[in-house]
Amino acid sequence: MSGALYVIGLGPGPADWMTPEASAALAEIEDLVGYGPYVSRVAPRPGLRLHASDNRVELERACAALTLAAEGRRVGIVSGGDPGVFAMAAAVVEAMEQGPPEWLALDVRVLPGVSAMQAAAARLGAPLGGDFCAISLSDNLKPWSLIERRLIAASDGDFVTSIYNPASKARPRQIYDAFAVLRACRGAETPVAFARAIGRADEAIVITTLGQADPGVADMSTLVIVGASTTRLVERPGRPPYLLTPRSCR
Amino acid sequence: MSGALYVIGLGPGPADWMTPEASAALAEIEDLVGYGPYVSRVAPRPGLRLHASDNRVELERACAALTLAAEGRRVGIVSGGDPGVFAMAAAVVEAMEQGPPEWLALDVRVLPGVSAMQAAAARLGAPLGGDFCAISLSDNLKPWSLIERRLIAASDGDFVTSIYNPASKARPRQIYDAFAVLRACRGAETPVAFARAIGRADEAIVITTLGQADPGVADMSTLVIVGASTTRLVERPGRPPYLLTPRSCR
Repeated sequence: MSGALYVIGLGPGPADWMTPEASAALAEIEDLVGYGPYVSRVAPRPGLRLHASDNRVELERACAALTLAAEGRRVGIVSGGDPGVFAMAAAVVEAMEQGPPEWLALDVRVLPGVSAMQAAAARLGAPLGGDFCAISLSDNLKPWSLIERRLIAASDGDFVTSIYNPASKARPRQIYDAFAVLRACRGAETPVAFARAIGRADEAIVITTLGQADPGVADMSTLVIVGASTTRLVERPGRPPYLLTPRSCR
Repeated sequence: MSGALYVIGLGPGPADWMTPEASAALAEIEDLVGYGPYVSRVAPRPGLRLHASDNRVELERACAALTLAAEGRRVGIVSGGDPGVFAMAAAVVEAMEQGPPEWLALDVRVLPGVSAMQAAAARLGAPLGGDFCAISLSDNLKPWSLIERRLIAASDGDFVTSIYNPASKARPRQIYDAFAVLRACRGAETPVAFARAIGRADEAIVITTLGQADPGVADMSTLVIVGASTTRLVERPGRPPYLLTPRSCR
């Protein structure tokens, strides 16, 4: 029996947003590696060894998973959302590149999933109806100057802008700095949505404008969407308004 | 019994990339509306009325679906991929905005899905490991000057760039024009991937560089990913190389 590593996207939270491919992989693996809260989302079963680790040790976690796979184990490493979007796929490929040559020959498969931006967009109607970009606000691995440059370029290109990792206990101020950059580039009436824990029990959405927004409502479970110049609200009786970025820019 | 409209993402193709939520909605609806090839992906069953339409009539299709829902029917309107990403969600919300006021009171739900960009990224390893943008190259609804401006801004921001709708029989030249813009902005060694029909029987991937790429390999089933300055290849013995955009930009 030869080892394998599945890089599994659990989706934003509820089981009905997890792909059947991901569910099948979770049923087949012998070892489950991941950040504790994601490992906790997977139902335990006999024969499945759990390896929960802390946040911000992605490379060590990837190396642990690859080591197990190289020993012949069938291993899953889990992320929330899509592993390719600000999650474990990059850490796994970085570990393969840096590790022993035999890791490059392993059977490694990335299993895509619904990302937080898409769950938020679904609840909000159609905010991503035009061209869009996604920016992680974490400066653990890139300088703030690059994040600032990207926020400005996203505005120059009039992209709908999804902001991942807007804030954490260790980084409470960056979302304020990001909004200062965005306010210098985009109109005060630009629609903004803070979408928190979409699909989970504590789901919450705040719809506001760039001028009125309180960046302090964002936490590490929040996905922020900042509209393009064409993004507008569509009011609905008895329900929250929809955000619409129309397909047409003519 | 009151009507409802589900805006359903079928995912990139294979059933194991379709969410359980989408499958449940397909099992519950009475009317299925969509572009012919997407309607054909859904297994027929007694009691399900099929309404297949031509391409490029998204607004009429959305109005037809909303009309049925307003009559009290339970309706699904289907897209490939994620309905929020260059698909039917925006057309439905536009139709709600422009149509009779009672459409705004309907029970409309967008069900997210895995988009082509994510399926391509999964096959390619980790090309979206950093900040990225998505641009549709179709100028049916926006001027080419805006597409050009966005390609330049994406390069100014050093975003990994996913190109949707790169070419069709009616628009064979735009991917050449887009590559001319990108070649003026990014290095010739920038990795480029053409990912065609990912997850389907005729899946094909071409990995090349911006300098070497033949834009003519792109068709309407192709998703193109153009790397950032940090994107690189990770060679694997006996398998296609991985594309890696590392998390770190330091």
